[in-house]
Amino acid sequence: MENALGFQTTIDFYGCNTDKINSTEFIEDIMKTAAKKMNLTVVKSTVHSFSPIGVSGVLVIEESHLAIHTWPEFNYVALDFFTCNKAYELDEGIKWLKEMFEAEKMELSLEKRGNIKRAMAFKK
Amino acid sequence: MENALGFQTTIDFYGCNTDKINSTEFIEDIMKTAAKKMNLTVVKSTVHSFSPIGVSGVLVIEESHLAIHTWPEFNYVALDFFTCNKAYELDEGIKWLKEMFEAEKMELSLEKRGNIKRAMAFKK
Repeated sequence: MENALGFQTTIDFYGCNTDKINSTEFIEDIMKTAAKKMNLTVVKSTVHSFSPIGVSGVLVIEESHLAIHTWPEFNYVALDFFTCNKAYELDEGIKWLKEMFEAEKMELSLEKRGNIKRAMAFKK
Repeated sequence: MENALGFQTTIDFYGCNTDKINSTEFIEDIMKTAAKKMNLTVVKSTVHSFSPIGVSGVLVIEESHLAIHTWPEFNYVALDFFTCNKAYELDEGIKWLKEMFEAEKMELSLEKRGNIKRAMAFKK
């Protein structure tokens, strides 16, 4: 049994295509396609365009959430992927996102959330 | 000048009140109130109830996002707060959330996202 309730994967994409990552249509489309590639079930999606530049997109998925925030002026995208139950097979989805953003560099980190033993110690 | 584009704060709340954290109304209400207490501007909110138990709530805010996922069966809440520009004054909001959840234990971590020097090195 895994010792965590949730898994939080954060990815930093550097050197991305300015125009693409400033487009709400592009961000919404690739979030949904990435979710499909990773076999995630989308519950709700919301995308917001910032003034003067930048996009925020969040998918609520049955498995938790996928959030993207873009800084077109820095060619940078922050992706945040939170899932419950297990670490998903993210490799294909992430590789595809890197290509879509035209990112030159990518940094990934994985954090376990919600220690099960600790949760049981505080269970009511 | 800060060397990061974004700040990601993750908080684990243990020993929370089962009924409260299984209520979509409660989660939506406290997310919005917490945002107000932290002077955040809510753009969109979405809350989803899971079967048979658990709630996911996401606020898209002008400053990025606030996400909450609850595991009532473990009395556990995972909170994820992503902001751009600067680390917000979270203390009051977090203390208030801990009280609202009736949490017995809280663990917080802060991660800087998007290294500005790295972004400039890959700027197009």
